[in-house]
Amino acid sequence: MIVTMQQNATKQNFEKITTYLMNKGYGIKDSSSENLMVFGVIGDTKSLNPNDLEAFEGVKNVTRVSTPYKLASRSFKKTDTIITLANGTVIGADQFVVMAGPCSVESYENTLEIAKSASKSGATILRGGAYKPRTSPYAFQGMGIDGLKILREVADKFNMAVVSEIMSEDLIEAFEPYVDIYQIGTRNMQNYNLLKQLGARTQKPILLKRGMSATIEEWLMSAEYIMASGNENVILCERGIRTFEKYTRNTLDISAVLAIKELSHLPIVIDPSHAAGKYSMIERLSMASQAVGADGIIVEIHPDPEHALSDGAQSLKLEKFDSMMGKLKELSSVLDKKVK
Amino acid sequence: MIVTMQQNATKQNFEKITTYLMNKGYGIKDSSSENLMVFGVIGDTKSLNPNDLEAFEGVKNVTRVSTPYKLASRSFKKTDTIITLANGTVIGADQFVVMAGPCSVESYENTLEIAKSASKSGATILRGGAYKPRTSPYAFQGMGIDGLKILREVADKFNMAVVSEIMSEDLIEAFEPYVDIYQIGTRNMQNYNLLKQLGARTQKPILLKRGMSATIEEWLMSAEYIMASGNENVILCERGIRTFEKYTRNTLDISAVLAIKELSHLPIVIDPSHAAGKYSMIERLSMASQAVGADGIIVEIHPDPEHALSDGAQSLKLEKFDSMMGKLKELSSVLDKKVK
Amino acid sequence: MIVTMQQNATKQNFEKITTYLMNKGYGIKDSSSENLMVFGVIGDTKSLNPNDLEAFEGVKNVTRVSTPYKLASRSFKKTDTIITLANGTVIGADQFVVMAGPCSVESYENTLEIAKSASKSGATILRGGAYKPRTSPYAFQGMGIDGLKILREVADKFNMAVVSEIMSEDLIEAFEPYVDIYQIGTRNMQNYNLLKQLGARTQKPILLKRGMSATIEEWLMSAEYIMASGNENVILCERGIRTFEKYTRNTLDISAVLAIKELSHLPIVIDPSHAAGKYSMIERLSMASQAVGADGIIVEIHPDPEHALSDGAQSLKLEKFDSMMGKLKELSSVLDKKVK
Amino acid sequence: MIVTMQQNATKQNFEKITTYLMNKGYGIKDSSSENLMVFGVIGDTKSLNPNDLEAFEGVKNVTRVSTPYKLASRSFKKTDTIITLANGTVIGADQFVVMAGPCSVESYENTLEIAKSASKSGATILRGGAYKPRTSPYAFQGMGIDGLKILREVADKFNMAVVSEIMSEDLIEAFEPYVDIYQIGTRNMQNYNLLKQLGARTQKPILLKRGMSATIEEWLMSAEYIMASGNENVILCERGIRTFEKYTRNTLDISAVLAIKELSHLPIVIDPSHAAGKYSMIERLSMASQAVGADGIIVEIHPDPEHALSDGAQSLKLEKFDSMMGKLKELSSVLDKKVK
Repeated sequence: MIVTMQQNATKQNFEKITTYLMNKGYGIKDSSSENLMVFGVIGDTKSLNPNDLEAFEGVKNVTRVSTPYKLASRSFKKTDTIITLANGTVIGADQFVVMAGPCSVESYENTLEIAKSASKSGATILRGGAYKPRTSPYAFQGMGIDGLKILREVADKFNMAVVSEIMSEDLIEAFEPYVDIYQIGTRNMQNYNLLKQLGARTQKPILLKRGMSATIEEWLMSAEYIMASGNENVILCERGIRTFEKYTRNTLDISAVLAIKELSHLPIVIDPSHAAGKYSMIERLSMASQAVGADGIIVEIHPDPEHALSDGAQSLKLEKFDSMMGKLKELSSVLDKKVK
Repeated sequence: MIVTMQQNATKQNFEKITTYLMNKGYGIKDSSSENLMVFGVIGDTKSLNPNDLEAFEGVKNVTRVSTPYKLASRSFKKTDTIITLANGTVIGADQFVVMAGPCSVESYENTLEIAKSASKSGATILRGGAYKPRTSPYAFQGMGIDGLKILREVADKFNMAVVSEIMSEDLIEAFEPYVDIYQIGTRNMQNYNLLKQLGARTQKPILLKRGMSATIEEWLMSAEYIMASGNENVILCERGIRTFEKYTRNTLDISAVLAIKELSHLPIVIDPSHAAGKYSMIERLSMASQAVGADGIIVEIHPDPEHALSDGAQSLKLEKFDSMMGKLKELSSVLDKKVK
Repeated sequence: MIVTMQQNATKQNFEKITTYLMNKGYGIKDSSSENLMVFGVIGDTKSLNPNDLEAFEGVKNVTRVSTPYKLASRSFKKTDTIITLANGTVIGADQFVVMAGPCSVESYENTLEIAKSASKSGATILRGGAYKPRTSPYAFQGMGIDGLKILREVADKFNMAVVSEIMSEDLIEAFEPYVDIYQIGTRNMQNYNLLKQLGARTQKPILLKRGMSATIEEWLMSAEYIMASGNENVILCERGIRTFEKYTRNTLDISAVLAIKELSHLPIVIDPSHAAGKYSMIERLSMASQAVGADGIIVEIHPDPEHALSDGAQSLKLEKFDSMMGKLKELSSVLDKKVK
Repeated sequence: MIVTMQQNATKQNFEKITTYLMNKGYGIKDSSSENLMVFGVIGDTKSLNPNDLEAFEGVKNVTRVSTPYKLASRSFKKTDTIITLANGTVIGADQFVVMAGPCSVESYENTLEIAKSASKSGATILRGGAYKPRTSPYAFQGMGIDGLKILREVADKFNMAVVSEIMSEDLIEAFEPYVDIYQIGTRNMQNYNLLKQLGARTQKPILLKRGMSATIEEWLMSAEYIMASGNENVILCERGIRTFEKYTRNTLDISAVLAIKELSHLPIVIDPSHAAGKYSMIERLSMASQAVGADGIIVEIHPDPEHALSDGAQSLKLEKFDSMMGKLKELSSVLDKKVK
């Protein structure tokens, strides 16, 4: 951490902050010159908040040299994290993983139809919401535990894995028998209790969606919460960020895939359904996800999107999904990560 | 709700969506003309998501006429909601309410010093974090229940009320004896379980901070969650939104106060500390908060911000706070809402 | 255009606005029902601003049915606009066009080295700044007319076309002999005088970069300015938008390509250099640009980026560019638009 | 400027960049320690772009110590810039200046009615658009030079000054006899030619509106362009920035006033009309502008907003403006800057 003092800072200002840091056990490397007071802070600065140091009088700014996260960082672990699921799906290696399913689980029959078709098209993970984070208290809130049971039963028929969103730490035990991957939704990316509890109480992988307005650093800090609590199997999911542009529901930050690959060893998938909010854009955004180097996608599909219980506008019809999978396979023939 | 069809929509498209809606019990008011198919949906559309209707082929866009929230809306309840606390503080009427205290509760002595000074300066509510939502798992996470006990004991000495942030529904019973107001932080604004549980399990007021990138409508929908669960004592808190500008920590959306006063009957306060992230801006932003018509402010203060355990850069020294209170009193002399 | 009145609007409110519109020559299609006053405005509403109508008392909101642009819209012209340059490059058809060159023209020799290499790698258009829009008045402002001459002379040696940014309508005559494509930079996207003058005074294509915070609609409106002034050869260029995320210089809005293809018949290229601001991301973002269906890319390259006069951090070395072109060719083998 | 190298940077990386800088005439203050290479760049770094230095291999980040602007900075000129107009209005001292008038000049009679009323209410500067930057090429583009003549003639009747927007450097001579203040609109904040030409060719004050998505630093850099070209009479104008929130037309960044007062000596006014886009919010936002310490406001008013040729929704009726002025006067009685 490098602390630069203001040009009108006094010797007293300098001594006050350096004494404070030395009392906390940090070393100080004074690098001041005639016109400028500047110093480095030596030691483990992960628990130091630049913001707090800026409270000291005479401080101009504080710059981190090392990242505030450790376990999630590429510099801590050089090799890619690879996650293997019980059904054989491998995330983070040379497979381009496809997760597909309905926004909300609606019924056994509906889920069966979707899973059968998705599996045939090449998806190996079944997604589906049993507990739904709806903006309105008056909207359908999901089937709950019954939804999870349906997902599991149906997925097993096609050797698919199950991913579903959990919204409360009180439900971890209830989820454990039914899911292969726990999903943390965008609205809960900084629900620190949920992060800590999941980190401590399950070893199954966690799909961590990026918060709507989370920086890449904050997102990795949330991954760090899970990892520091004991579970290092984190899969990141870029799902679009909130910007001024309203033609699409969110703005897919495709460069985030490259940023994560530089900064971290964790796998990352893209959710084109929530990013765009329009089914017409999903195929092409999925192709772009492949080309940019993502480890997979998670897509909403439905036999009859117009009658879906939620998010119809962004759900792909089963036959459109099948045709898209054909294109993804063709594209993957010239790329490193292959569609199964 | 008004549905406009695309210019190339077919009669079949029109019939499919209107049939779907009629099957759900809605009335249809067809308003099409020669060049344009458009119709209104009659009935309680609160649980209808425009997004879902846009899934239907041929639909161009769907516009809400009534708000998606009801209990929180000005049209449902014309008169301002007024909340009276046990210590006599009245929020939402002609008082400009000042909540002040440390970012984190650090010790009994420290809290006592702050409360004594804050109370003398005119603050009637003591704020303080016992459970802290820290971005880093390695940062100080708060004193927990001991922090709440200190807040209560100290506040009682000066007839102050207590507001503190709750991050998990599992802690509601633990909080109940100690706080007068439950605070929901910006990162939990859409933690729907927490909203519902607080709505159902306490009648004490809830201070609902705006999410970092929440629209005003989403914010009121979160208030609606609490209210629909049984607790109508919601106080909104604008604390700055996330934008491209990084000179300040967040961008204080001062117009949000006016928007809320138009759309809702709920009281609204401003948090200038988090909005600016710089103590030098707090006095003037507090004066602006008064002038724009907010019901109060919530401010971080500390006897020695440089040694605060968190958020030092945005904490006001006790004497600066006292001098600011003098200015707020003077300003309030020509405004409707008075500093006590 | 559909006008919805507020629920407490009066008959007088309704009559005032409809009379106003009828006096302007518009027809009114009244679609009100018992609970709701709503009407359509019949006629050419392109010059009507929804904002102005919202000034009328009792108006709740005003929704456009047709787009505010006409010449640029897909509904006005169904087939893709295809632009053929003098050197045979075809933009908007089945070619994936690559424009490459230095951020700023620095010297004849430097430009020659770049163009020779770029051309060999497969670029057919030479980009280069002669007049530079620099944030600082103290930074290098470009070589001016001499830079244009160098670009032309060098490009001709390799049968390349020239694209360069114009910042003032006073320079149109000076540019005309030297460029094949006029570039309008992101900071001038709403410099309406420049748009109108270019539209009226040249028939050469205009590369219109998206403003840093321009919506897709505003961007197409700026294209409409050029087209309505007489020049329909507009090429759109997505170059990243400004968001809260600062790890990348801007956020590449890759979905914008799909939006433009839906809404307009104009070709669109992507500028990955400015979008990311990091050379390490350019190859993968270019591959994603191909996969999403863009008509081409515009990339900054330099033999020695560390000594470039501007934008070194986002310039690709010549050999990296060559290797990237190999990947783009391979990828294009399974896509519609081919790298030459 | 402080350059921090990556942790895996080599001695060669370090030497390459420091040699480059020394060749450019800068001094190097090496402050490296065992674990970290870091150095300061000594000399006038205003023309150095951190971005360019980040192109060097092994560089982690580059932090400015001094601001990239000089003439506009508070550290260069400690005392507030005070601008006195021919009619006696003083901007930047203890007056709270009110500029008011129609969005567009519509006719002599209309302007006369507005100016007469505005002047009586206490406005001393008449605003009005003669050349309008309209998003649509089909919308009313302003009366042009005739509009300027009307403004001048009418303003003189009431000893008012005139401010009007200029969109092209070709019009400077035409504007000069008619305006007291040249306005640069939000869309032209980075039209560098316009900035330079105005800086060089007039000594009349320039009202520089903040770009829709301009950072405070970029805004001050644009002021620097004008000042470095010869005209130091710049008045800044905050008019709302573009964010995700759409309930208001823009988000008024009220903290920007405080930021500017810290960083610069230039006066700053607020435009509540464009910030909110709703007339109902103007009174309270103007009061907040006063309370936060702005030097004045610029407001759109109209005798009949519903029939205004532009921006009706955000124009205040004359009697509402008069009543607002009464409140501003009352509020200013307890503040430093007084309404005349």
